[in-house]
Amino acid sequence: MSKIHLSTLKGFNDYFSEDMIIREFVVEKFKTIAKKYGFEGLETPALEYTELILGQSGLEAEKLYYRFQDNGGRDVMLKYELMTSMCRAVAQNINSLVFPYKRYQVQPVWRAENIQKGRLREFTQMDIDIIGSSSMYTDSEVLMIGVEFLNELGFKNYKARISSRKILEGVLEFLKIEKEKFTDFYITVDKIKKIGEENVKAELADRGFSTKDIEQIISILNTKDIVELESTIGTTETGKKGIEEVKEILEILQASNIDNNKYCFDITLARGLASYTGPIWEFEVIDGGVGSVSGGGRYDNAISKFVNREVPATGTSFGLERLVQIIKDRKMGEFSKTNIEVIILAMDKEYLNIAIDTASILRNEKVNTMIFPTTEKINNFLKYADKKSIPWAIIIGETEKNNDVLLLKNMSTSEQFVVKKEDVLKKIINK
Amino acid sequence: MSKIHLSTLKGFNDYFSEDMIIREFVVEKFKTIAKKYGFEGLETPALEYTELILGQSGLEAEKLYYRFQDNGGRDVMLKYELMTSMCRAVAQNINSLVFPYKRYQVQPVWRAENIQKGRLREFTQMDIDIIGSSSMYTDSEVLMIGVEFLNELGFKNYKARISSRKILEGVLEFLKIEKEKFTDFYITVDKIKKIGEENVKAELADRGFSTKDIEQIISILNTKDIVELESTIGTTETGKKGIEEVKEILEILQASNIDNNKYCFDITLARGLASYTGPIWEFEVIDGGVGSVSGGGRYDNAISKFVNREVPATGTSFGLERLVQIIKDRKMGEFSKTNIEVIILAMDKEYLNIAIDTASILRNEKVNTMIFPTTEKINNFLKYADKKSIPWAIIIGETEKNNDVLLLKNMSTSEQFVVKKEDVLKKIINK
Repeated sequence: MSKIHLSTLKGFNDYFSEDMIIREFVVEKFKTIAKKYGFEGLETPALEYTELILGQSGLEAEKLYYRFQDNGGRDVMLKYELMTSMCRAVAQNINSLVFPYKRYQVQPVWRAENIQKGRLREFTQMDIDIIGSSSMYTDSEVLMIGVEFLNELGFKNYKARISSRKILEGVLEFLKIEKEKFTDFYITVDKIKKIGEENVKAELADRGFSTKDIEQIISILNTKDIVELESTIGTTETGKKGIEEVKEILEILQASNIDNNKYCFDITLARGLASYTGPIWEFEVIDGGVGSVSGGGRYDNAISKFVNREVPATGTSFGLERLVQIIKDRKMGEFSKTNIEVIILAMDKEYLNIAIDTASILRNEKVNTMIFPTTEKINNFLKYADKKSIPWAIIIGETEKNNDVLLLKNMSTSEQFVVKKEDVLKKIINK
Repeated sequence: MSKIHLSTLKGFNDYFSEDMIIREFVVEKFKTIAKKYGFEGLETPALEYTELILGQSGLEAEKLYYRFQDNGGRDVMLKYELMTSMCRAVAQNINSLVFPYKRYQVQPVWRAENIQKGRLREFTQMDIDIIGSSSMYTDSEVLMIGVEFLNELGFKNYKARISSRKILEGVLEFLKIEKEKFTDFYITVDKIKKIGEENVKAELADRGFSTKDIEQIISILNTKDIVELESTIGTTETGKKGIEEVKEILEILQASNIDNNKYCFDITLARGLASYTGPIWEFEVIDGGVGSVSGGGRYDNAISKFVNREVPATGTSFGLERLVQIIKDRKMGEFSKTNIEVIILAMDKEYLNIAIDTASILRNEKVNTMIFPTTEKINNFLKYADKKSIPWAIIIGETEKNNDVLLLKNMSTSEQFVVKKEDVLKKIINK
């Protein structure tokens, strides 16, 4: 017995009442907004064939897989992200789905990461994606939803930084650097916010970029205004396309009356994933302390390669635990410790009927009501209600039973009321 | 490329829009009722140390584990059920939790089962449990919630069959059969509904029960009325206690005004799990074709053995996929194929603003609205709306733009209306 670890695995958490209230609040907001914009639900399995995911997320990622052989000898793994699994589901159902297809998905994923604040091994992604349209309206919509979602959660100081893989490709094209170096390039550029300009220069040099190219790259990366880029990388085919696309997104966002402090063009954003092909973005809560809370972009080839037909796609992924972490750290919103609103004590087994009737009246009006399961001394009962932070307590003793009333106590003010069973609801709701 | 399996693993499903609508409906009902009765949310990890679960669920079950070594060499497994994981979480937090502790939990579990209708390898359990009270009121409450939940889902013909492990123990005590045979006994009795009386007799004989004992066992198992049992097994200590407990549950259910067709005492129910110690039950949808939809009971030792202190517990587990299967098979309820209520087409890119404004008006009133992401021919657009079963379509063409109106089409009746943007909501809601 004593040998059994009474613990979760490292990076795996239990979530109790208070956490669950915040988690469910965030997930509910996300789903409601996604539905409002016409997204439909999707769930895919926790386990997938490894071959599906292998090679999708880079060698570094593969070290983080929860991969094993199942009882049937299949090479399987816990899903690393929702996107690849969704692409598989879409490709598999390509003939029955109607495109454009818009789905939201809220499910856990697993990565054997080193653990640090806001970085778990099991965490929940909240994704929206629009499949089957190349229109920049879809990218813009994904961004609009991100802004609406963060607003609704009560965030004030956040920003969507927007760039494009095509613009980054344009940099290489403009400088006449070989296409083969693109992965080296964007992986390095992606670190500029974290490691700074000097380290990016050094890394680019290590990766074989010439001093002259590096100077020009850094100079271009310092361009804040997208229009200015037209004179340099805008002269290349890919760069021009990338600039046009991002400008179109920015125009649609402006037409949507979104506060223009909430988004900006940022050429230094590159995003690590190999699958991006066009616009990319990250949502960052300023001073949130947990990195970005959402990242996404366009990935026009991820599904196409399974089905031999064009299936453009775009989307974004929010991290539930990171959002909850900031909400908790900043004590945003007024979250109760418990969803129990009223607790009832029958001081004698014979009064249990009265407790059940009273609970019934309250529950019919959606008041969450717990009946204390045994008789108990009033003090112990009130101590319980207090420890659990339950706002209202009802006591049914001999006096109450004989006079056909209830003793109602407001746990935060300590006020007591003697009320008829039928009136208890009014008292609680009016308070 | 062509070698990649575009399929889920056997027994693992994708759930698209229509399924998700029913799944979310069922889960939402479950959570709402659980909260109404004062249960709080809990989530535990998908992976646990294997040693925690090993030996909890019987040798047969162990063959069904998804068990492997993680990158750190830990012997881990995907959780087989929610209960053991919850017991671990409770034991681990024994000093911070306040008892009685009531929690609901809705999460997937994994079993490498042979696949058949309503039996998947990944499925979702919806559990409620009350920890830290021996009161029969808690068992009764779990049953009340089960009845309310099935009622709310629209089921009419279902039944909770209730028995007790103590009553079954009483049978052996009464017949003076060794206690060691109890597991053999209840595992065999548990099959009586499936394999019939004769096969149970044969199996009991195989397991070493005497012909005389078998005759008496079968005679007792044929007792329908709990009061009749008092003259036989009620004369034993354990049997008496078991009968008292079940009678108390039946009384509380009666006092709660629950239709007494919805529950009954059934001594032949035994439930396979080793952990049960008192009252046990199953909810069965009559002619549902998927076996029981919920099973549970009291398990007073499951947590205690981790923490060296008494922690009585009771609860029940509903199977989401089984409930959804019956709801779909019987076409219960009116579920839409999609949650999209309105779809809007801007026939020219220049009218996208009008589409966004119109969508905004609708979304503000919680009408789920999709903007078609590109310009499109009206016929193709209407075909899309039709295929997706979206009830309302809005078209913004040149005429509409010039006259500051929208063309609104009811997709089921084919009626068309020319309306002002501000009036579109009224038209849709009134219909």
